Amino acid sequence: MLDLSGKSPLELSKLGDPLVNLIYSLALTEVYEKPLCKKVSNSVLAEAVEKAGLREIAGRRKRRGELGDFAEGLIFKAWAERRLTIEEAVEILAGSLEPGTGLRESSIKGFETLLRRAGYGRGGLSQH
Amino acid sequence: MLDLSGKSPLELSKLGDPLVNLIYSLALTEVYEKPLCKKVSNSVLAEAVEKAGLREIAGRRKRRGELGDFAEGLIFKAWAERRLTIEEAVEILAGSLEPGTGLRESSIKGFETLLRRAGYGRGGLSQH
Repeated sequence: MLDLSGKSPLELSKLGDPLVNLIYSLALTEVYEKPLCKKVSNSVLAEAVEKAGLREIAGRRKRRGELGDFAEGLIFKAWAERRLTIEEAVEILAGSLEPGTGLRESSIKGFETLLRRAGYGRGGLSQH
Repeated sequence: MLDLSGKSPLELSKLGDPLVNLIYSLALTEVYEKPLCKKVSNSVLAEAVEKAGLREIAGRRKRRGELGDFAEGLIFKAWAERRLTIEEAVEILAGSLEPGTGLRESSIKGFETLLRRAGYGRGGLSQH
């Protein structure tokens, strides 16, 4: 479709934003069994980047908003390069989002796992 | 992935919103050859619904905002039911969005074509 190879995650964050919102909304829809649409906060994505051990790759001086953009760009890049399908991403996120648990914490965990499964982070394996 | 069969387009519009934004942003990115993210206005989607001959199916008393939601729901339904892939949708939209032409008019045309190709509208064929 699009040749976006060579683009950095930050350049791709604009496209990652609607993709991440779609994936997150689909996962919430699956877990809560009704159509839901919700934006992911930069703060949640920034924490997921940190927990996946990607903060240094993102650069030491990045603000939270920029870390969130970085996460969106990474996820978009993985999807555009066919390393991650929307279906896989939704299943990974839905696996962390359980009704009754804190949405913020479970969303951070879900995106951390998503970043690792997409090939980013330390060895692609959860260390928790 | 999700079993959303039996849901009406209006129920699915919440999920159609991020999907349509993703498709539109990808199409703009393809046409303008740089990452772009843009939301589609309800007004553009409402006109596309009318041009595709779907206004009556949507109900006669629907306001523009509701018609836009209806379009989002229809597109989501086609995608969820595997009648339309994201790649196909992007190609269809990008075929209408040409640099230099009015973005609003070409976007309406693009979404009209998309709705028809997704199996909605009069016979699925453009009548223009």
